[in-house]
Amino acid sequence: MAKHWAEPAVTALRANGQRVADLDTSSTPGFTGGKREGKELLAERATVLSDLQEKLFAHGRTGGTRSVLLVLQGMDTAGKGGIVRHVIGSVDPQGVDHASFGVPTPEELQHDFLWRIRKRLPAHGQIGVFDRSHYEDVLVVRVHELVPQREWEPRYDLINEFEREVSENGTMIIKVAMFVSLEEQKRRLRERLERPDKYWKFNPSDISERAYWPEYQKAYETLLDRTNTDYAPWYVLPADNKWYSRLAVTELLIDALTGLNLDWPPADFDVAEQLRRLDES
Amino acid sequence: MAKHWAEPAVTALRANGQRVADLDTSSTPGFTGGKREGKELLAERATVLSDLQEKLFAHGRTGGTRSVLLVLQGMDTAGKGGIVRHVIGSVDPQGVDHASFGVPTPEELQHDFLWRIRKRLPAHGQIGVFDRSHYEDVLVVRVHELVPQREWEPRYDLINEFEREVSENGTMIIKVAMFVSLEEQKRRLRERLERPDKYWKFNPSDISERAYWPEYQKAYETLLDRTNTDYAPWYVLPADNKWYSRLAVTELLIDALTGLNLDWPPADFDVAEQLRRLDES
Repeated sequence: MAKHWAEPAVTALRANGQRVADLDTSSTPGFTGGKREGKELLAERATVLSDLQEKLFAHGRTGGTRSVLLVLQGMDTAGKGGIVRHVIGSVDPQGVDHASFGVPTPEELQHDFLWRIRKRLPAHGQIGVFDRSHYEDVLVVRVHELVPQREWEPRYDLINEFEREVSENGTMIIKVAMFVSLEEQKRRLRERLERPDKYWKFNPSDISERAYWPEYQKAYETLLDRTNTDYAPWYVLPADNKWYSRLAVTELLIDALTGLNLDWPPADFDVAEQLRRLDES
Repeated sequence: MAKHWAEPAVTALRANGQRVADLDTSSTPGFTGGKREGKELLAERATVLSDLQEKLFAHGRTGGTRSVLLVLQGMDTAGKGGIVRHVIGSVDPQGVDHASFGVPTPEELQHDFLWRIRKRLPAHGQIGVFDRSHYEDVLVVRVHELVPQREWEPRYDLINEFEREVSENGTMIIKVAMFVSLEEQKRRLRERLERPDKYWKFNPSDISERAYWPEYQKAYETLLDRTNTDYAPWYVLPADNKWYSRLAVTELLIDALTGLNLDWPPADFDVAEQLRRLDES
């Protein structure tokens, strides 16, 4: 067990049918330390993550077919970007494929909702990171009825089938739903409005969306119920404390990569012979 | 002038018709400190780079059209991967698009040599990083005569036209040619053969290529002569000292980003009005 954890993040955060509305978004499940311990530990564990990631990359470069996909979902200001910057930022960019899914383009709308997602699946040896994902198609789409229910309703099953296929092809899927409180979101939005270096992160529609908070919670609850599978588990992350979010996702990734049980790839050449050739070159 | 630099990297390293064979690959042009100072300074300057990169990203997110493209070229073991890991790794992965160009696929060979390159040009606000590039088409292709001279010879002009277009479209291009000595390459290859955690980086053909060293030097000299333009300058980087390479490329990127003269994007909304809306939400 990593230092300061009473229960590993992977079990403490696993979705288990809890009601989203009841979540204490300021809690730090499994972790016994505070902010200072959390930040110190993050720096330490970032090195562990980076070493594991290098093994995954090496594996992919030598014919291995495993990869990892981290799906990040959350309302505006939940801290998805911070996870990318402060967690994914600690590993080698060569082994990271980051994709951000916004409002679909006209071309994307001419295809089924998984079309643009499939195109960005991580290659062998890579950690793929989705900042928003196919889950938007049962979140914003459902809340605003962008398509009728007969169209979004079947998507839960389609997503499960899709993720099963991706998983069977060798990709370890980790899905993280980040939740801040309505009050914490207000604080974070206010910061964006009070600091000129944050204006660019603000969009007036972020405020309009706040009126739909209960509908989003309900939509999250449904997707957590219907798409929380063994092969693509959901983790419910209380995200009021940024330091905790980052540490927790680091631990989830470490757990996933450790589970791949990768070692350094063996030489597929005769080492002694190559050393001789090198000496003569 | 940054601390410990007698002359900025951007002028000290700019290609100026020097002979590649005469380059002292263990030198540290412009820098007056040693390894310790270099490493300390790198940590400090990484923060500056990261802040500038965030401005570029913000610019791209608010309709700006500027971007940066870092082209890395060099023989095996020259340290291209280390630049990505230790320099690019210090900025937000959300703003980085890394592309590695290996042996062309059959599909890529069905197109002109710039086809696969164009597809990976950085989006607005991004730093694109090419680990190898279209320059392979006048390097390995020329050295091994993979196509006849009448085919590779026109590529220098085609590259200049292409890069002019890319530059005029708003992309700041920085091209870095990294050179280690034949001896230093031998040391680095030996390390890959002596450490099981490095086997995966080794390929027997890396040794065979050493026999073509003079031909590669000549091919590099031609491309430095013929594609060193104001809009897409080459920097000649002595790369025996990894700490120097990383620091120097950091400085080149800082210089480029500073030259873009970006500020935080202004609000395109009424701040006071949004604060009122937020309070009521």
